[in-house]
Amino acid sequence: MSAPHTDVEEVEAANTAFYQAVEEGDFEAVSGLWLTPADLGVDETYHDPADAGVISCVHPGWPVLTGRGEVLRSYALIMANTDYIQFFLTDVHVSVTGDTALVTCTENILSGGPAPTGGDELGPLVGQLVVATNVFRRTPSGWKLWSHHGSPVLAGEDEQDGEEPPS
Amino acid sequence: MSAPHTDVEEVEAANTAFYQAVEEGDFEAVSGLWLTPADLGVDETYHDPADAGVISCVHPGWPVLTGRGEVLRSYALIMANTDYIQFFLTDVHVSVTGDTALVTCTENILSGGPAPTGGDELGPLVGQLVVATNVFRRTPSGWKLWSHHGSPVLAGEDEQDGEEPPS
Repeated sequence: MSAPHTDVEEVEAANTAFYQAVEEGDFEAVSGLWLTPADLGVDETYHDPADAGVISCVHPGWPVLTGRGEVLRSYALIMANTDYIQFFLTDVHVSVTGDTALVTCTENILSGGPAPTGGDELGPLVGQLVVATNVFRRTPSGWKLWSHHGSPVLAGEDEQDGEEPPS
Repeated sequence: MSAPHTDVEEVEAANTAFYQAVEEGDFEAVSGLWLTPADLGVDETYHDPADAGVISCVHPGWPVLTGRGEVLRSYALIMANTDYIQFFLTDVHVSVTGDTALVTCTENILSGGPAPTGGDELGPLVGQLVVATNVFRRTPSGWKLWSHHGSPVLAGEDEQDGEEPPS
């Protein structure tokens, strides 16, 4: 665990790059930021009983998606149905232990779909408050996303002190 | 990554033990299953810029809780307000990479609070469908929980094929 400051900065940069790739609708970049077994030196043709590096993803309100096929298809679907999305990240916390990093953050999301009239303009913008736990793994080609779990925050404004259950 | 089968079995057992401890309202057991910096050989009096082993937890609909103080207080609060809770775990998937394990599972929860009349009997039982991502870290005293993120599944029954967004 040498140079932990650098580790934290690298992980934060990878986390920011991930949200930026989704904002830009850059599927290749999103795909490249998710871990592959090859990143870990695991032979993908061999069945690994420990499922090393198998990715998983939970979008807010969704069931679990497991493996690159399901996860990347979900991003293609979301990007195809989103004309505009922006993430304002707050409360970013990074914990690096060995070759794994855990990032928690609040995603203040502003998004819009196509205009209801079918014109060129955006539909109404919608705000959404989501909290995420992102797990990154150190690889020879940088920190890669092993797991993303996002969920809606249902508590009222005055109950978001982290101590009370949502009403 | 020797004996991966054993790793997966050990992680599954730790995951089961965690839910069992919550079911039994055993705060000491819950506390003992969450990672401490000491488990990793980190001196807790020294400020670690990488925050190695700092735990985080998201209950369904809640904001992020960070650190043993916030996380364990939330379990004390939940246990104090729950007379009966049972987890039926399905779709358990384990991915072990080095000294970190990622567990995803569906928590089919049945819970009950005190009877509304204040008698000895349980209140009405409530079912809840939650998906969880649990991150475990290998320590000299076994696999310990580094992160738990639970979230409600909002999709309708016929939309839970992992491909469609919730309605």
